[in-house]
Amino acid sequence: MELYSGEINKLISELAALPGIGSKSAQRMAFHILNLPHDRVKMLSDAIINAKENVKYCSECCTLTDGDICPVCANTKRDHGLIMVVENPQDMAAYEKVGKYDGVYHVLQGVLSPMNGIGPADIRLKELIVRLETHEEVREVIIATNSSAEGEATAMYISKLIKPAGIKVTRIASGVPVGGDLENIDEVTLFRAYEGRVEL
Amino acid sequence: MELYSGEINKLISELAALPGIGSKSAQRMAFHILNLPHDRVKMLSDAIINAKENVKYCSECCTLTDGDICPVCANTKRDHGLIMVVENPQDMAAYEKVGKYDGVYHVLQGVLSPMNGIGPADIRLKELIVRLETHEEVREVIIATNSSAEGEATAMYISKLIKPAGIKVTRIASGVPVGGDLENIDEVTLFRAYEGRVEL
Repeated sequence: MELYSGEINKLISELAALPGIGSKSAQRMAFHILNLPHDRVKMLSDAIINAKENVKYCSECCTLTDGDICPVCANTKRDHGLIMVVENPQDMAAYEKVGKYDGVYHVLQGVLSPMNGIGPADIRLKELIVRLETHEEVREVIIATNSSAEGEATAMYISKLIKPAGIKVTRIASGVPVGGDLENIDEVTLFRAYEGRVEL
Repeated sequence: MELYSGEINKLISELAALPGIGSKSAQRMAFHILNLPHDRVKMLSDAIINAKENVKYCSECCTLTDGDICPVCANTKRDHGLIMVVENPQDMAAYEKVGKYDGVYHVLQGVLSPMNGIGPADIRLKELIVRLETHEEVREVIIATNSSAEGEATAMYISKLIKPAGIKVTRIASGVPVGGDLENIDEVTLFRAYEGRVEL
């Protein structure tokens, strides 16, 4: 049974295809949009199309950006000898929000996941290798993929690939989060925190 | 600090303006959109514009629909002598989903709310009056506004407006929801259920 007419259903199903949006949220969003003034709706629709059309991969670090090169890579004050490898632009933004890292990034745009058919050729790994070959100033590559099984496997893979070239490869520390209550933390994390203990 | 470049930020802020979407969800949706193929993005953007441009109020019941008249009002098999007054198209869809109601609807597109400056002229109330004046076959108006303070006030207001014309006005029952556990139901609902008790 069709509860709404064609164009409304089409809008609801397009919105429901977005991540984290169920059919109830999609309905609420759709009727919100239908009740907005025309110019506000045009702004939303334009923002979608313009972002898709104008945003591309940074030619240096592969993050998503407006221009040919992203602001971080274009910044000559940052340490271009230090590359942090992350999975996606959101992870890069998370470290930028910390504001303490002054190196540059390399955004893989994904993570190795044989289960989902994602191999080394499907992520921006070749670009990292080319970058390391052409930029001799790189002293260290910090691998900051997520602490998931896939993130760890990707970290191992990259490490094995880069190390023979004589570049220092590090991994961000894994352990108890600041403010975390030991009682509520999983066993694997607790074991990692034990293994990675540092002298005071 | 700008974490993303211009077009990406613009998209994120447009998405974050939708109801129920926080900045994290907006980011996730934005990057999802940026990673979709061009034609899928075009479909989403078109669905938004087309819905806004082609959807209008049904000339009979004021719900949102593609054509001049909605499928329910156009259906001659339905009982046009019975009008259920609801707040919005979603509430109409909720009753349509039940599938047991064969009358027609009147969609107010809002509810009286003096606190928010919404008076009788801001909702589709005049259209209901005109409809009752021109359609003499209407036997009963069922008021199915929400059971909130504003919904109740709107129901009372409409009832006082219509009753003098000699039309039967009813209100959907208020009480304990089916499957509800008395222990977890608020006092007002419990009192309503007691007041509205029916003989077995």
